[in-house]
Amino acid sequence: MGEFDLIKRYFTPSAYSPDVLLGVGDDAAVMAIPEGRRLVAAVDTIVAGVHFPPETSPFDIGWRALAVNLSDMAAMGALPRWMTLSLCIPVADEHWLAEFARGLSTSAQQYDVQLVGGDTVKGPLNISIQILGLVEADRWLTRSGAKPGDLLYVSGVPGEAGGGLRVMQQHLSASSSHHHLLQRFLHPEPRVSLGRSLRAFASAAMDVSDGLLTDLRKLSAASGCGADLYLEGLPVSIALHDVFGVRAAEEFALSGGDDYELLFTVAPGAVSLLESALLHGEVQCTRIGVMTAGEHVRCLRQGVITPISAHGYDHFG
Amino acid sequence: MGEFDLIKRYFTPSAYSPDVLLGVGDDAAVMAIPEGRRLVAAVDTIVAGVHFPPETSPFDIGWRALAVNLSDMAAMGALPRWMTLSLCIPVADEHWLAEFARGLSTSAQQYDVQLVGGDTVKGPLNISIQILGLVEADRWLTRSGAKPGDLLYVSGVPGEAGGGLRVMQQHLSASSSHHHLLQRFLHPEPRVSLGRSLRAFASAAMDVSDGLLTDLRKLSAASGCGADLYLEGLPVSIALHDVFGVRAAEEFALSGGDDYELLFTVAPGAVSLLESALLHGEVQCTRIGVMTAGEHVRCLRQGVITPISAHGYDHFG
Repeated sequence: MGEFDLIKRYFTPSAYSPDVLLGVGDDAAVMAIPEGRRLVAAVDTIVAGVHFPPETSPFDIGWRALAVNLSDMAAMGALPRWMTLSLCIPVADEHWLAEFARGLSTSAQQYDVQLVGGDTVKGPLNISIQILGLVEADRWLTRSGAKPGDLLYVSGVPGEAGGGLRVMQQHLSASSSHHHLLQRFLHPEPRVSLGRSLRAFASAAMDVSDGLLTDLRKLSAASGCGADLYLEGLPVSIALHDVFGVRAAEEFALSGGDDYELLFTVAPGAVSLLESALLHGEVQCTRIGVMTAGEHVRCLRQGVITPISAHGYDHFG
Repeated sequence: MGEFDLIKRYFTPSAYSPDVLLGVGDDAAVMAIPEGRRLVAAVDTIVAGVHFPPETSPFDIGWRALAVNLSDMAAMGALPRWMTLSLCIPVADEHWLAEFARGLSTSAQQYDVQLVGGDTVKGPLNISIQILGLVEADRWLTRSGAKPGDLLYVSGVPGEAGGGLRVMQQHLSASSSHHHLLQRFLHPEPRVSLGRSLRAFASAAMDVSDGLLTDLRKLSAASGCGADLYLEGLPVSIALHDVFGVRAAEEFALSGGDDYELLFTVAPGAVSLLESALLHGEVQCTRIGVMTAGEHVRCLRQGVITPISAHGYDHFG
């Protein structure tokens, strides 16, 4: 089966919503943008052995490839709509492709995203997805809007995905805690709905992919603020405690990476809006600190500054 | 120098046009789409050793990575506006990055395209660009609009790029013909202006990347037509004749690949519009055949059907 047949078989959607005027199969796709909406675009690439262990199942790779991109839309408060896929694979293994396509389309259906174009080439495994979304004019979230005094929140339980990666790498035995962590790594749940809610009142937002502390430093730098992070305020993961102990659990929470949770700030006057939104939301959010007029991100334990040497992932560091 | 510094240094544009509301540096970019325009999106990926010889200079790789994507915009009659870049490199070599960025930004400036986002990861060399463009509502070109009787044209001189690749692979000696062919491979000139003109009167268009005959078969199949290709009507490349001889020159023209010329059809009644447009254009276009009511693409020499075993590039064939 040739390249063109493969693409056609596994990556041609059977139907499009009316905003896709021309889908997969021509030199490019054509989409309609509703009036009053802005286009939001991002790209995220995952490489075998770098972003996931080589033994990861093709279904999970497909899910993950889209999920990490959806997380960028969530961080902007945008509604994901379309994607293009660049798939570089060493061999055209039909089983692999079928399972990868199933993982990709499962997340695509869950988040209502349509595949509108792609390129399949031969080479070392590399999956790049470009995500396209829409956001109301002048209502998107950025990393740079936080002000001193804004309260700092994180969604979900950061660190569990990092623990899940460790479980996978070390082939640890399979208790329910192991399984829970593994699922958090393999099936990140991009916080698209939360991002859409935050749009109304958050001052800044970004997704946590490189580790909470590293990403908080980026948000702080982009906003020109410092931040105080309360270590005792971090969401507690029973599964991380169970598998790795209390001390390692905190390390995972601060620098585990791969969480795809949202880190965001809310002005004190808008906290009631947040609380009201969270009542109707599907994900827990925890207040973990406050933005400051300083230049640095500080970690505090019971009010005492605590040096933490947590480094996020730097590909070439 | 870490990943984030590298990205910042080489891939942060110094300025944006007003339609880029948020550029590189946040979780995603935000762009304004003018009223009455549709969004056009495509992705093309190039891999070392597959799409270009490993010894290709980083400047040429940067140029080429964008040019192959611009060619997709040209084929749609779209105006390219923005791109995201997924760059997978084995090591963070500063010289390589600086030269790659220079090649990329040279073509970006020439075609007025802005880099709005990207992802740099570690791994085997793989460059994927997602191109975003705009087109007037209901005025884009497709592969599927050709009708029997429409005249078939190609821009430029197909085959020269394929000859240039052969020159490079075989380290042939450097006459001016060698140099000309090499340049046609290393510096494809996407036919964006031609595509914009064709929008007004062409019935179908696509870009020639996998070889003229292979791509003509795709256009014919998409349009539900056959086609007769006149071998004696193919544009003659003096450089191909000079380096490889007459017979090989024809083979390159039919199946060389990497041309990034436009293959398009025009109804007989619109030929005068084409001729008028070409008077003001920068690239020669040659009539090479006619669409038919048949099912197949046939090659004719002096009116006699001539079997040609020309296969385009199929990654997994």
